[in-house]
Amino acid sequence: MRVRCIVSYDGTHFSGYQVQPQKRTVQGEIEEVLFKLHKGQPIKVHASGRTDAGVHAVGQVFHFDTHLTIPEERWPYAINSLLPEDIVIVEANYVDEHFHARFDTTAKEYRYRIDQQKMINVFKRNYSFHYPYKLDLSAIRRACTHLCGTHDFTSFCVAKTEVGDKVRTIYSIEVIENEKEIIFRFIGNGFLYNMVRILVGTLLDVGQGKINADQIPTILEGRNRSLSGKTVPGRGLYLWKVHYDN
Amino acid sequence: MRVRCIVSYDGTHFSGYQVQPQKRTVQGEIEEVLFKLHKGQPIKVHASGRTDAGVHAVGQVFHFDTHLTIPEERWPYAINSLLPEDIVIVEANYVDEHFHARFDTTAKEYRYRIDQQKMINVFKRNYSFHYPYKLDLSAIRRACTHLCGTHDFTSFCVAKTEVGDKVRTIYSIEVIENEKEIIFRFIGNGFLYNMVRILVGTLLDVGQGKINADQIPTILEGRNRSLSGKTVPGRGLYLWKVHYDN
Repeated sequence: MRVRCIVSYDGTHFSGYQVQPQKRTVQGEIEEVLFKLHKGQPIKVHASGRTDAGVHAVGQVFHFDTHLTIPEERWPYAINSLLPEDIVIVEANYVDEHFHARFDTTAKEYRYRIDQQKMINVFKRNYSFHYPYKLDLSAIRRACTHLCGTHDFTSFCVAKTEVGDKVRTIYSIEVIENEKEIIFRFIGNGFLYNMVRILVGTLLDVGQGKINADQIPTILEGRNRSLSGKTVPGRGLYLWKVHYDN
Repeated sequence: MRVRCIVSYDGTHFSGYQVQPQKRTVQGEIEEVLFKLHKGQPIKVHASGRTDAGVHAVGQVFHFDTHLTIPEERWPYAINSLLPEDIVIVEANYVDEHFHARFDTTAKEYRYRIDQQKMINVFKRNYSFHYPYKLDLSAIRRACTHLCGTHDFTSFCVAKTEVGDKVRTIYSIEVIENEKEIIFRFIGNGFLYNMVRILVGTLLDVGQGKINADQIPTILEGRNRSLSGKTVPGRGLYLWKVHYDN
């Protein structure tokens, strides 16, 4: 039986999602719990993709196979009772054996939170990027219209990214203002390594007047990481939702 | 020169406000920083009162005396640059030498956050009390009217509280509903040890029908801790604001 889970985690104290030796990772914690529930049988977990150190998830998705006959609504409680408190399984469902959490995604939504208050807020320090500088949101929104659509995003991913095809489609970018906070909401068919964080860094440069919004097409065409802005910190980033066809 | 500071802290990783040997405390961290800024001279900090382990502060107030001639708007930066990231000085002002952060308070505001979502939210786990049970808010509000005013709150503080006079005045209790969250807002002239947390525990019992709202006067008159509800966890509690005459 294949189980699909929606999982939420506070990325603050993790070295990212993916298992790494000697590091505390989200996948490592989940696989350890499944190993215990399956009485010592190793269970491999497949997620929609990785998230980096400090990056959070509201609705990451993974699947695994099991021979246990636990009713689906009991799975979250069974796993959560053994998980550390910074990971919570929100929902679990039995799915078709052909479902794959990574290969079947149709879209992903990421959000990035920017704290615009003058003084850093202790309660947001791990959950947003403190950036108290004035931003021209209309310039940022103009830059967003240039970024939406299907483009080669070589200029917006880590230079050493090994994926061959760097063409991705961004369906929408929303800029939400919410009392001294700005939230960027990205929906796309997929995102390259560090892509959302470089997009945000570049949009902040646009908002500060360091990059003109209408330079974005040239930056995309240049296919060179050095043309875009800085990579903003992981702590402001949330994998918000993973979409599938169904 | 006397300096009054407003300080915000995330109480999660502190054994409370007040200095205790071998423990990480808010006062301890602040005094260590002031010791460094004063080149090894011990500086005693006086706060409006203590907060317990896990309890947060948005606007705790303290004062200290200094011979340093730092402009008041620079004090927050000077102290924050040496403080750990879970404490932030929000504001500093030079005040009259007779000002006392503890003795001059005229009122205090505390807030208590209750997370009513079915599943625990990883991002709120240290910042609210997860209580997913149905609450009768009209019963709770009726109980609040009985609690407001001047009463002997012996039934609402830790049994071993050594303060002689347990008469306090609660000016207002507000119950705020905010999408799957309930916030209790208490303003009073002072609160006894654990008083807010026992008040909330009792109000939750009222909301669950375990205590009738109109029993509150009897509970107050009984002057016995065993008559009121449980003490709710510190993580939902915030010292929100300290008021002074000026």
